[in-house]
Order: sequence, then structure tokens, then C-alpha cells
Amino acid sequence: MKKIIFNILFLFTVLYLSAQDGHQLWLRDKQAVPVTVICSESSPTLSIARQELKEGWQGKPKTSITLIIKKDKALKDDGFRLGKNSIQANTDIGILYGVYEMLRRQQTSEPINNEVFNPSYERRILDHWDNLDGTVERGYAGNSIFWREDDPFTVTDHDKTLWQQYARANASIGINGSVLNNVNASPLILNADYLARAKAIANVLRPYGVRVYLSVNFASPSTLGNLKTADPLDPSVIAWWKNKVKEIYSIIPDFGGFLVKASSEGQPGPQNYGRTHADGANMLADALKPYGGIVMWRAFVYTANDNDRAKQAYSEFMPLDGKFRDNVIIQVKNGPVDFQPREPFSPLFGAMKKTSVMPEFQVTQEYLGHSVYVVFLSTMWEECLKSDTYQQGAGSTVARCTDGSIYPQKYTAIAGVSNVGLDTNWCGNQFAQANWYAFGRLAWNNTLQSQQIADEWIKLTFYKDPSQKLSEANYAADWNKNFLAPVKQMMLESREAAVNFMMPLGLHHIMSANGHYGPGPWWHPKGVRADWTPPYYHQASTYGIGFDRTKKGSDAVSQYHEPLASQFDNLKTCPEKYLLWFHHLPWDYKMKEGNTLWDALCRHYEKGVNQVREFQKIWDKAGPYVDSTRFMEVQGKLREQCMNAILWKDACQLYFQQFSKRPIPYDLERPINNLDDIMANEFKHKND
Amino acid sequence: MKKIIFNILFLFTVLYLSAQDGHQLWLRDKQAVPVTVICSESSPTLSIARQELKEGWQGKPKTSITLIIKKDKALKDDGFRLGKNSIQANTDIGILYGVYEMLRRQQTSEPINNEVFNPSYERRILDHWDNLDGTVERGYAGNSIFWREDDPFTVTDHDKTLWQQYARANASIGINGSVLNNVNASPLILNADYLARAKAIANVLRPYGVRVYLSVNFASPSTLGNLKTADPLDPSVIAWWKNKVKEIYSIIPDFGGFLVKASSEGQPGPQNYGRTHADGANMLADALKPYGGIVMWRAFVYTANDNDRAKQAYSEFMPLDGKFRDNVIIQVKNGPVDFQPREPFSPLFGAMKKTSVMPEFQVTQEYLGHSVYVVFLSTMWEECLKSDTYQQGAGSTVARCTDGSIYPQKYTAIAGVSNVGLDTNWCGNQFAQANWYAFGRLAWNNTLQSQQIADEWIKLTFYKDPSQKLSEANYAADWNKNFLAPVKQMMLESREAAVNFMMPLGLHHIMSANGHYGPGPWWHPKGVRADWTPPYYHQASTYGIGFDRTKKGSDAVSQYHEPLASQFDNLKTCPEKYLLWFHHLPWDYKMKEGNTLWDALCRHYEKGVNQVREFQKIWDKAGPYVDSTRFMEVQGKLREQCMNAILWKDACQLYFQQFSKRPIPYDLERPINNLDDIMANEFKHKND
Repeated sequence: MKKIIFNILFLFTVLYLSAQDGHQLWLRDKQAVPVTVICSESSPTLSIARQELKEGWQGKPKTSITLIIKKDKALKDDGFRLGKNSIQANTDIGILYGVYEMLRRQQTSEPINNEVFNPSYERRILDHWDNLDGTVERGYAGNSIFWREDDPFTVTDHDKTLWQQYARANASIGINGSVLNNVNASPLILNADYLARAKAIANVLRPYGVRVYLSVNFASPSTLGNLKTADPLDPSVIAWWKNKVKEIYSIIPDFGGFLVKASSEGQPGPQNYGRTHADGANMLADALKPYGGIVMWRAFVYTANDNDRAKQAYSEFMPLDGKFRDNVIIQVKNGPVDFQPREPFSPLFGAMKKTSVMPEFQVTQEYLGHSVYVVFLSTMWEECLKSDTYQQGAGSTVARCTDGSIYPQKYTAIAGVSNVGLDTNWCGNQFAQANWYAFGRLAWNNTLQSQQIADEWIKLTFYKDPSQKLSEANYAADWNKNFLAPVKQMMLESREAAVNFMMPLGLHHIMSANGHYGPGPWWHPKGVRADWTPPYYHQASTYGIGFDRTKKGSDAVSQYHEPLASQFDNLKTCPEKYLLWFHHLPWDYKMKEGNTLWDALCRHYEKGVNQVREFQKIWDKAGPYVDSTRFMEVQGKLREQCMNAILWKDACQLYFQQFSKRPIPYDLERPINNLDDIMANEFKHKND
Repeated sequence: MKKIIFNILFLFTVLYLSAQDGHQLWLRDKQAVPVTVICSESSPTLSIARQELKEGWQGKPKTSITLIIKKDKALKDDGFRLGKNSIQANTDIGILYGVYEMLRRQQTSEPINNEVFNPSYERRILDHWDNLDGTVERGYAGNSIFWREDDPFTVTDHDKTLWQQYARANASIGINGSVLNNVNASPLILNADYLARAKAIANVLRPYGVRVYLSVNFASPSTLGNLKTADPLDPSVIAWWKNKVKEIYSIIPDFGGFLVKASSEGQPGPQNYGRTHADGANMLADALKPYGGIVMWRAFVYTANDNDRAKQAYSEFMPLDGKFRDNVIIQVKNGPVDFQPREPFSPLFGAMKKTSVMPEFQVTQEYLGHSVYVVFLSTMWEECLKSDTYQQGAGSTVARCTDGSIYPQKYTAIAGVSNVGLDTNWCGNQFAQANWYAFGRLAWNNTLQSQQIADEWIKLTFYKDPSQKLSEANYAADWNKNFLAPVKQMMLESREAAVNFMMPLGLHHIMSANGHYGPGPWWHPKGVRADWTPPYYHQASTYGIGFDRTKKGSDAVSQYHEPLASQFDNLKTCPEKYLLWFHHLPWDYKMKEGNTLWDALCRHYEKGVNQVREFQKIWDKAGPYVDSTRFMEVQGKLREQCMNAILWKDACQLYFQQFSKRPIPYDLERPINNLDDIMANEFKHKND
């Protein structure tokens, strides 16, 4: 009998453990405490708010919570006021955001003090690079949750459940927009069939306050509409877009607008017709304007023949400053090149003073280890948001230059390229969920600190994971000490670790060619445009390494406002983290701490590997506090990350050593890969 | 002008450097000092002796050296007396050995003091596992130098040059016999065509004192001779072998004899006809006896149905002790299983008191990393030779039990399974040459210490490698300190390192199934006999690990003479290096140093990896003292070894952890491979 009970208990434990597969994200089921919810109004959104409170209440039992919708000037947009027993907002969705904030504070043991919460950006958007055939460009978590190849237009209950879970997750962190398809957009998205599906998605997302947006192909009027041109000044083109927008709004009345990648990396754009970005964007903006729609026009443009790709977005867009409609927002990647592990901020931030600008971050880890690496990107985004542009004096941070604090923008917005896919855990790696979470939190409050975001996410995602090994008595104290503290440390250090083992000291764009996973500093096949090859960026020679962007070089420094231009230009003041971004230096250049550049470079690579090894120890020690499914998933990912970190270290040390002709400092661990083997494997994967 | 000279010098250096590809082994070209050689007799062997002195003399210029052939009772077999100005021996080959010893002493700066040098074993033989199609079983240095598939019977000048270089290398270290073909012998070797080629080989080897032997297939009379049987007691069979032996000696008058693997691993043998090993071996011995030939009969036998493979050679051969002819030598592998990284000595050594016994070592690294690992096997062989069997009281070492010191054997012999192939550097890995060298040196003098052998080999192989980085003035002192000392340390530690990262604490036979490279402790497919699978040997369970060979287990301990039987049987006295060879112990068994068995096991694996990392540092630091070709070859091998050491560590820690259910001690580096991936790759290679 005893044995049977034990077996039943064991079975129960196993089932319960296996239930923790990460699908619930930071919104795990709770054993709710009874609560009374008082609300005089009703709507689908308010029903959700009520339900969330009832199912998630962790406060005092039998509390009464009043939900109050009342105009309040202190509250802007989706803001809310959080009291101990009330949530007040201008809108239903404001109430819902307040509910999620209240529940979060209960779970993370943060106080509730009748505070006002307002979002930093009006539009907080996830860009899905989802193709209509269901694949996801730079997606590492399975296929699209929105589109599929087989039976593409039937909307199943399973679809709706998934979209609802997705919308709820977004709402819980304040995300209020989703671009449903890839910026490399198929014109077909504007076909009736796909628009009908977009409508179905919008219907599920709407109660959660998430509006849908679409990426459009600039050539749609000709490729889809059979017009002879897509010239934005052509009356038939203008009419085509007007009609299309009208059609969209007839189907999706709260449609958010268009995202456009034009005249970039082979995508059609106004320049195909001798027009400017402003001509193109404004034409679309005019079509959207009557309905309150916006155009997010990407500044990610570069041509093959420029001597410094990092300068081009600025060079091309600055002359157009002031020429855009007020419902056009220029979407600018955080750095001037392309979502690298570390870049200085894009000089367009703050520089475009008469044009709306929005930051674009990449939540999916295209250049940061796909779904393999544990890299908490919050610190990278925080670094960007807090960068001072000096465009309107000290304190003109990227955050303040884009959120309306400094420049009066009609619309403010921020975008993150989504890492969501059909994988059970949504993001491929349990820890990649933290990046989705962090993007939402920073979009809501761009002054948040990464350590707080990590703290919240860990508590929400892992606290009181089933464990047979710990006594209830000391659980909280044990957990704080043995799980929360070390895991938070790992997260906060993780991006710097990745920079160290991939591209330290300002190196950038030296990854493997197509997959963008693993090292490839040598890649430069004949016929490939130079600015797509790593040697263009690292410029390694027997003399030294780095891209000279000083005044004597490409002069990219001058795109920054003083004192930055001089600071970056001058070796004495240039931050070492940007050293090789701005300077080409001899191998024996003396670093501040006394090492030569070569030795310092080698040491950064080694440090990065050792940091990942330390993460492995942290996670293994945290084992008793995590269900086995998620524990083992992350453990496996960290192993693979460490293997790849060693590959990065070996590849870069050995490749650059061919130029430096100096020994790897003898106290450092030696490579375990031969360069020839790495290169052979890399080229084998090239055509993947 | 200065620049031209510099360029010429540079060119010269490069050419000279690239000439050091390892093909010259430990016999590199020297800038000889003039010497006068006086010898009253002449023979091909004496011509070689004279030439070697003239081309290699490094002593006082214009010394006169007298070569004296004179009977001297102090000199046995191939022995010689080395004086400052004379070499005296009973035979021409004794003179040649003396010459090599003299030149070696000059190069290694060892004194010459009118000493007598006698070999420990009369027959010092390399066994080539070379197949007649040119492949080499367990060969990792290219195809056979003796046999080839295309145009197999033409003897080219290139063949002869290679055989002559091979013979010279052997002579220089005292090896005087070569078994030309695989112990898994094709009957075709006894065909006239192949015998003709063996004759051609013998003709080249003869002046260097190297006799040829052949492996024969016991079924040859039926498979090759078309007899109805190969029964050793059948008169027609006896006659067939007599005729065949006569034919061989008519072609190769100094033919050495036969090596036979019979009734083992599918090879035919006397047991196929209901006869004993003695019946089989004696029949062949009788045929060879008139010509002075010997039979080397392998004791490597085991059947699938025994409960302990380690016991079987002993069980099968001990009852036959005293039943063999005096020209039969039982060839016994160093350990009771199969050339594993560490085994206790085979209990047959010293136990067979009325039968000649010879040790068989494996120079080729079948179980020790092929041509990838740097593993100096001398320490392993030294460990075996110095093991005390106690069979005739303390001091009855394996060496003394086989070299005639204790038992009067008509013939004494020792065999090493060759690691030689067509690779430019002969052995696949520059450091594998040291194992060829060490085998010869230990066969000559089985009391030599590995540290002396390593010292000699390093000096002969690397001293004064061209280097632009060192001044002539301090070269010797610098070299001793920065190259000789650390590289010697690496060699002497290398086998223990391999044991640590592969099979520590007495573990054995847990390698990957077919290739015998890398880990495979999990391998046990259905239908494969248990004693070919690792779980048979490690016996891991949730209780513990190890093979119980105590008196309560398989009782293999009782095959050892006291006090060993009791010592191995008793946990208090069993050496930890043999712990899991003799004992099955719980995971939490307390080791002498205080760790649990599980923790100790994990720590051994980690230690092994770190030892290899240290070797990499040693070698990298030694870079300035080695030509770039050999430096980079070894550097690449060490990298691969380290990668594989990590794979071993990860695989074994993770596989055994499934049973131990204990954490890898948290201060240890974590695995970077996932067990599933390792196993998937291993099974992928299984059919290679």
C-alpha cells in the first residue's frame, strides 16, 4: 500500500514537473487567493482584467479591488494609477495593464503605493519577420504562429488559443502592437485571403490591446496591382494605396499601419523611380492618415560602393530631416551597422530633429547565438537607451530623443524584432523569453534597469518551481540566495560575456557568413560585395586591426555630436569597448591596463569562454530549484554555447594570429580547434 | 645588397626548415666531424658501421676508432664493448649496434667508459599488422611499407630505399626482427609470389641485422594447400608445413619463424580439430626446428561464454605449461584483456614456469588515441616490465621472468605491434616515433628508465633544430631549460594523462566500439557478445561501478601469486589505479584521499583534460626550438587530443552520472557536450 501511494506521488510529481515546459512564460498558473473585483463597466478587455485578478491574486484574501475608468490628466495613453485596493485608468486597456502590474508586484514582493504608471512610448511593437509560407527569417523557435504553408487560410481553435496566449503575454508586459509579417515583405500580404487571416488575428489580439500592423512591399501596386509602376508620385499608384488602405480599415478598423523596408538589401523602394525616401513614406502616410495609421519607415539602408557602411543611414536620411509627414516614423536600428553584439548607438538618434524617430531592437538573437546562447539583451538595449547623444545638451539620451521628452513627436514608438515561434517554449531557449519580457518592459518604461527586469522575470518564471529537495521553511531565503542571486548575475553578465568571446573591443560583423552563428572573420569570396564580408569590418593586417572611423579615416565620428565626435576620435578618450570600431591600431598598441592590443584581444576571448563556464556552474548549482524539463533544456543550451564560445575564441585567436604573428599569451588556454578545420566546416555550412 | 643576402638567408632557412618533416626520425643528418675507422674485416654490415661513423661522428676530430670482432664471453648474442676509441663485438651486427650506441652517446652527451652492453632479449621484434592489400589493421600512419594492392610483386627502388631506412632505424635501437604481415593472417602470404617479396624485403633488412618472420594462418594447409584438413596431428598436414618451411628457408635462409594467432577472435586453430594449443604450436615448431626457426604462439584467446575475459588466457594456457617445444614462445600481451590504457600485468608472466614466454606490447596506439594523441608508452611498458609477479619470490619482475634471468628459456623474445606506415613521418604523429624508439630501447635493455629514453629521444630528434630566434651562445642551456625539460615532463606524464581522461581508477574497455577512438561506455547492441561491450567491463549500476574480480567475484585475483592475490583482493591494499579493475564499489565509497568514488572519478577526468591543456602550453612555449613543420603538426595533434579528452570527460561523467545520480562536483568545469549528441555521433561512426 505504501508503495502504491509512493508510486502515485511519484507519478504526480513527474506530471507536474513535465508541465513546466516554459509555454506559460512568466505567467505560470497560480493557486489564487480569493478576491472581490468591483467594476461598474464591462467590455471584453475588462472581463480579462477581472479574470486575471481572480485567477492570479496573491494578496490578502478577500480583498476588494475596484477598477475605475476615469479621465485623469496625470495618465497619458495607456497609463494607470495603482492603489492598494484600486486601479484607475483612462481606458479599459489601461485597467488591464494595471492589473498585470498589480499581480506582478504581488509575485515579486514589490510595494504598491498609489503610483502613476505611464508608458514611455505610445506604440510598443513586436516586428515578426514571419513569411507567408510559415518560415521565420532569423527565427530560431520554430515556424510562424501566424502563417503556415498547408491550409493557410483556415483559422483553427488551436490558432486562436495560441494567438490569445501570445496576446496575453504581450499585454502583461505592455506590448500593444504586432507587425504580422516579414519586413522583406511579400506583396501577397495585401491579398484578400491574407488580409482575412490578419483580421482573424486582430480579432483575437484586440481585447488585449494589441493592434496589428503589416509590412508592405513597396512594389505592391505593380506586382500585385498590375500597375505599370510603383512610383510614389504616380496618381494611379497613389490611388491604389488609398484603396488598399481603405480596404484594410474596412476589415481591421483599428489597423496600426505599415512597416516598410524600402530601397534596402534588394527590396524595391522609391529610389527605383528616382524618388526619395520621403516621397515614398509620405505617399503611404497620406493614405493612412485619415484612419490614424502610421508608417514605420526603416533607415536600414546601405549601398555597396560606400567606403563605410556605418555612415550610410545617417548620410541618406539627414538631408531628408523635416521632409516627412507627422505620421511617418523613421525606424532606426540601435547601432549604425546591424544588430551586432556591441555597437555604439546610431548617430541618427537625436540628430533628426524635425522627424519622428523610433528605435528598432532585435529580440531574436540573429547575431547573438540564435536560440542556443543564454544572452540577456536588456543590458544591450539599456546601454543604447541611456547613451547620451548630446544633441540637445548633456542628458539627451537616445531614450529621451525618441520618447517625446526632447522632440515633440506626434507619435512615439519602439520596435523589437520578435523571437517568437511555434516551439513549446515560444522562443527556443527558456532564457530567450527574458528578452521578449525585457523588450516589453523597456518599451513601457525606458528608464528601467536591467537588474530589475531580470529580478522580476526570474521571480515570475521560476519562483517556487516544484522541488523535492528543499524544505518549505527556508525556501524563500534559500531560493533568493542560491537561485535568484546567481542566475540574475549570470543574466546581467551574459551579454558582456558574448561580446568577449565573439567581438570584443569594438570588433563587429565577423560572424559566419550566412547563418550568422559562429565565427567567420575570414569570409570574403570573390564577387561578394565587400561590405558583406568580415574583412571589410576588421581590416586586419600585419600592421594591426580595426576600422578607422576617425577624422583621418572614414570620419564616421563626425556624425556624432560633440563632445562625442572628439571623444571617439581621440585614442585617449575613446571607450575601449568601441576601440576597434573607431580605430585601426597596431598589434602592439598599449592598452590602458598595460597589455598590448593583441594580448588584450586574446584575453577578452578567454574571459568570455570562462564566463560561459561560470554560467554553466551557476545553472548546475541552481538545479534543485528548477523542474527537470527546463533545467535540462537550459543546461544543454549552455553546453552548446560553451562549445561555440570556444570555437569563437579559437577561430578568432588563430585567424588574427596570422596577421599579428604574435603568440597567444602563454598563460592562456590553448586552442583546441585547428583553424583549417573550423574554416572547412564553416564553408561546408555556407550553403545551408 | 644586404637585402639580397638577407633574402637568400631567409630562403635557405625556409628550405632547411621544411626539410624537417620527421622522416629522418631520431637519425637526422649531421654535420660530421672527420674520423678514422680501422677495421680488419669487411661485410655489408661492417660497411654500414663504417659509413655511419663517418657520417655521424660528433666526437673529437680525427679520432681513430677501431672495430674489433673477437669472441668475448662477457658479450652475449648481439652485445658489444664500447671503448673511447674502440668497439668490440662477437659479430658484425654487434659492431653496428656499438656504433649506434657510440653516436647516440656523443649526441646526448653521455659518457663512454669501456662498458659492456648486452641485450635483455635475444629476439627484439616488431609485429606489423599489415595486410597483403596494403592496409594496416590498427595502423594510423598510412598504408603498409611492405605490401600494396597495385602492382603488388614489383620491387621498386623506392621500396628498397624505404625498407633500408626502416631497417636502419630498427638497427639503431637494437630491433632485430620484423613480422611482415598481420596476425590475422591471410593464407596467401605463403604463396610463392608473396614469399618472393618477403625475400626481397629480407635481403634489404639483412645487413642491418633484421630478420624477417611471417604470421601464418593455421588453416593454410586446407585453404591454400587444398588438403582436407589442417589438423596438426594429421600426417599430410605435418608434411605440408615441413615442405612449406623448407621452401621458405630455401628462399630466406635466416628466416626467423612464425607468429600465430590461433583459435582466437574467429581465426582458425588447433581447437577446430579437437587439438590443444600445444599440439598446434609444436607441430609448427617441429617443422621449423631444423632451421633454427621459432614459433611465437599468441595467448590472446577468449571465448564468449566465460564470466571474466580477463581470466581466460591464464585458464587456457596454464594447464599446457611444460607441454610446448623449446622453440615455441607463448606471446603474452602486457595485460590480461587487450592493450588498454592501464591494466595490471597478465598473470601468465612468471606463472608459466616450464614454457618460454615473451611479452607483446602495442606500439601502435589502438586504444590510446591513434596517431592523434601524444602518449609516450614507455612508462606503460616500464610499469609492466617492473611489475613484481612474486612467482619466484620478491623481485620476480615481468622483465626477469621473460628475459631468461629466472627461467632458462632456450629463446627469449619481446614483440611490439608496429606503428609504422607510409606517412612521411612514419608514425602519423611525430611523438609516436618516440614509442617505436622506446620499444627498441626497452627490448634491448629492459631495465632502462623511461625518463632516460625520453631524454635520449628528444635530444636525438630535436636538438639544434634550426631557429632564428636563439643565440648560439646560450643555445644549449636555453634548450635544456625551455625545450628538453618541459617536453620530457610532458612525455613522462602523457600516459597517466590519457588514463585520467579515458579510463581512470582501473576502468577499462569503455572506448567507442569499432574505431577504438573516443568514448563509448554505453555501447551494447543486441546480438553482440557481452565481452565485446563496455558495460561488461564497467558494470555500472545505481549501486556502483567496477568489475568484481575478488575472491567473491570472478576470482581473477587468485591467478596472481601471493602476496598479490590478497593485496588486489583487499580494498585496503589494492592500488587505486587498479581499484575498479578488481572491485565493484558503491558510488559513495570513500577513497583514501577522502573523496567519494564518484567525485574522485569526476576529478580524474578533469585532471586528465587539464594535463592535456598543460601539454599544449608546453609545446606552444617550445615553439622557438622546433622547425615550423613539426611544430605545427604536433600543435594540431595536441589540439585534437584536447578536444577528444574533453569528449571523453563529458561522455563518461554524463554517462556514469545516469547511474550515480550525483552531481559532478561543482568546482569542476561543466561538460560542453550533451550525452545524446555524443552517442548519436558515436553510433554514426559505428559503421565506419
